[in-house]
Amino acid sequence: MTTTDLLPALRAALGADYVLAAPADMAGYAEDWRKRYRGVPRAVALPGTTEQVAAVVRLCRDAGVAIVPQGGNTGLVGGATPDASGTQIVLALKRMRRVRSIDVADRVLVAEAGCVLAEAQRAARAAGLLLPLSLAAEGSATIGGVLSTNAGGTAVLRYGSARALCLGLEAVTAQGEIWRGLSTLRKDNTGYDLRDLLIGAEGTLGIITAASLMLYPQPAARRTAWVALADVAAAVALLNRARDALDADLTGFELISSACLRLVARHFPALHAPLPIDAAPWFVLLELSDSEDDAHAQARLETVLGAALEAGAALDCAVAASLAQAEAMWAIREHIPLAQASEGLNIKHDIAVPVSHMATFVADTATRLTQMMPQARLVIFGHLGDGNLHYNIQAPVQADADAFRAQHEHACNALLHDAAVRVGGSFSAEHGVGLLKTAELIHYKDPVALQMMRAVKRALDPQGLMNPGKVLPAAS
Amino acid sequence: MTTTDLLPALRAALGADYVLAAPADMAGYAEDWRKRYRGVPRAVALPGTTEQVAAVVRLCRDAGVAIVPQGGNTGLVGGATPDASGTQIVLALKRMRRVRSIDVADRVLVAEAGCVLAEAQRAARAAGLLLPLSLAAEGSATIGGVLSTNAGGTAVLRYGSARALCLGLEAVTAQGEIWRGLSTLRKDNTGYDLRDLLIGAEGTLGIITAASLMLYPQPAARRTAWVALADVAAAVALLNRARDALDADLTGFELISSACLRLVARHFPALHAPLPIDAAPWFVLLELSDSEDDAHAQARLETVLGAALEAGAALDCAVAASLAQAEAMWAIREHIPLAQASEGLNIKHDIAVPVSHMATFVADTATRLTQMMPQARLVIFGHLGDGNLHYNIQAPVQADADAFRAQHEHACNALLHDAAVRVGGSFSAEHGVGLLKTAELIHYKDPVALQMMRAVKRALDPQGLMNPGKVLPAAS
Repeated sequence: MTTTDLLPALRAALGADYVLAAPADMAGYAEDWRKRYRGVPRAVALPGTTEQVAAVVRLCRDAGVAIVPQGGNTGLVGGATPDASGTQIVLALKRMRRVRSIDVADRVLVAEAGCVLAEAQRAARAAGLLLPLSLAAEGSATIGGVLSTNAGGTAVLRYGSARALCLGLEAVTAQGEIWRGLSTLRKDNTGYDLRDLLIGAEGTLGIITAASLMLYPQPAARRTAWVALADVAAAVALLNRARDALDADLTGFELISSACLRLVARHFPALHAPLPIDAAPWFVLLELSDSEDDAHAQARLETVLGAALEAGAALDCAVAASLAQAEAMWAIREHIPLAQASEGLNIKHDIAVPVSHMATFVADTATRLTQMMPQARLVIFGHLGDGNLHYNIQAPVQADADAFRAQHEHACNALLHDAAVRVGGSFSAEHGVGLLKTAELIHYKDPVALQMMRAVKRALDPQGLMNPGKVLPAAS
Repeated sequence: MTTTDLLPALRAALGADYVLAAPADMAGYAEDWRKRYRGVPRAVALPGTTEQVAAVVRLCRDAGVAIVPQGGNTGLVGGATPDASGTQIVLALKRMRRVRSIDVADRVLVAEAGCVLAEAQRAARAAGLLLPLSLAAEGSATIGGVLSTNAGGTAVLRYGSARALCLGLEAVTAQGEIWRGLSTLRKDNTGYDLRDLLIGAEGTLGIITAASLMLYPQPAARRTAWVALADVAAAVALLNRARDALDADLTGFELISSACLRLVARHFPALHAPLPIDAAPWFVLLELSDSEDDAHAQARLETVLGAALEAGAALDCAVAASLAQAEAMWAIREHIPLAQASEGLNIKHDIAVPVSHMATFVADTATRLTQMMPQARLVIFGHLGDGNLHYNIQAPVQADADAFRAQHEHACNALLHDAAVRVGGSFSAEHGVGLLKTAELIHYKDPVALQMMRAVKRALDPQGLMNPGKVLPAAS
């Protein structure tokens, strides 16, 4: 197989309609949604079945051509964008979008890689069950993508990241073979954990084509509250209080700075914060899920919040009185990244820090960043319950966002990532490494871990054709 | 390094007291606790630090000598027993038994590999927290062992297997290097999931020397009940009813056949079953953990059990009225394997089956086994909530247990494992593969998965010196 034979061979395998090669047809696949990375694919292959995915991989392998798998293209680290060489094939999974099965008795859903997360959630809900993975991009993100990045989101506190929900995988190896591993078992100790190896590997070890996912009972009742807090330490104290009292029923605990709310108010004026934005520098969106009923949920929430208010640990709070009010609270949280995007590219971080260090971490880094860039806006929010902050830095009002980013990104990253790693934290909590953070991986990761990772990569993808350059840069 | 230099070199590295070479000293390390496997080690090395583990690995590597890591030696598949060659070094982790730290604010415990599980549980409890991994061997099993086998136990339903509790690892690679990966973060997406690759690898990819484990709040109240049921289908129906009503607060759901109880009554007459053994063919031990208080726990349990009794779905039930009564119920459950052992070796199975198939699986296989061996005793119990049964077969009363096992083991395994795999089940739910089930792994595992496993093994242990012959038999 020569590289000139590849496109005709792909067309023969998939049908001519499912191999795109014209630049206009490929535009949507060549760039990530933040428009940070733009590549030039040789072609975009759109297989409709697992067998076709395997055929594409075998043809590319024979031609020595690299493959970039792509799901909903909602990643934040450039993991699904081809390079500029004009040689790579984007393998888009979007045609493989079926929910293959839902088993209510065993509480398992099997979906194809290209199935949009929200569709899988809807299918579970229609069966009376809950697929708890929930994130802002769920209307476009796909099952293959959320697993390949081990996505997190707002319900990790209770249900874990994507990895924790996955019982089995079907995947195509770098050799173009199909691993049929769609177990639905809660327990299956039969050899090495290939499932978790492919999860989070961002398509560099093989291509996930389908997954079996654990479902949970739908809660009988949910209550959502919006709490005003004097500082991050108070938010951490409220988290500990809520975890002690609610245990597994605490299903959301999002920290939001007032700066985030001001951005949302500017760009989405129809979204009204439940408490005055200037009432406090920090807010928490807290969600309780209850297996009994509304009254019980309400009583438990009131107990926790009442005690916090009485102790002076919270400044004020609002409890959603209806589903609509609860959804409005979540809408504010979910519009923060969109409000930010309206002001141009920002310097994003996806930091994890042990919760016990969170308050001093935020205070110290905010002071240092403000000294460094007095007018910059810190837009800090995230999943405090998981110790995960999106600690973003927006150009000063009226400033050129791109120029600001170009000038400050490296120093901001170094400051925040150093500070996080120094207290046992991480430079990537839930977004992954992709192209954006390969230098951080090399710099911060334990060198023995890096050696092991390289050995695994060579073992499973000896030709280096699976999403090359992502996660692990080419070995020196 | 020649193999004759190895022992002096080990003594120089560890101190002469910590390298055992006399057969009498090595006896306890040469045999598994069930006395199914017996090997002949060249020596037993007892390192006291991670650096010493690394030194032992490097010395063995230089000498081309294989290493068999051993924790509490409570495994059920021979994974920690040396072979008969007289050449292998047993690397016993028992001197590395410290709880290195407990962080109450971040709810993390860091323990060394040789720390006994019960000691780690106690340390967590003393800090007001819960380490939920719980299994019959917890008084001897070690953290390194429960992770290397991804052990399960009685609380998996709520908290997951050992893997689900592990946040980070420290490990020594086959090259004798130390991977320092003791993260305490809930979220850390920075490259391939080496942690989960080593967990469950039974020491064949490296040696776990320490782990950080997630802790949970201690429940405010617990309630334990003993329920009599007409058949397995009724037990599954009760499970579904309890999961819907209790969600995460259902922390135990153990199925026990009346045959198990008769064995316990014979060998441990001081243990009294809460309901007459002949009242039903099946019993369930159900545990509820509550984050509120005793009264709330009691009310919820009564609601679930009351509805089941009223619907005729349960025959009878007893709720423990005190902690002592609850512990007595669990003691019966935990004495089943001991009662079995008192009658000689039995044919053990550790089967997983989707819960929806459980009733027909048990009925069909019991009929066929009884046709095949009319006098054999089926001793069936296990973690029904996880779809995991210990489906053991005991020789007829008065028969020679060893002769029975030798005659029937292969046919019993084939019958039960075929039947389990046919409905999407597994031949090893929580015990692992070790030496006992390598043939099953080759027979039942997806061939592409086996290829990937072999590639990973070659990549991380190219000399094949890490616990050779376990999990994956030598490649043909």
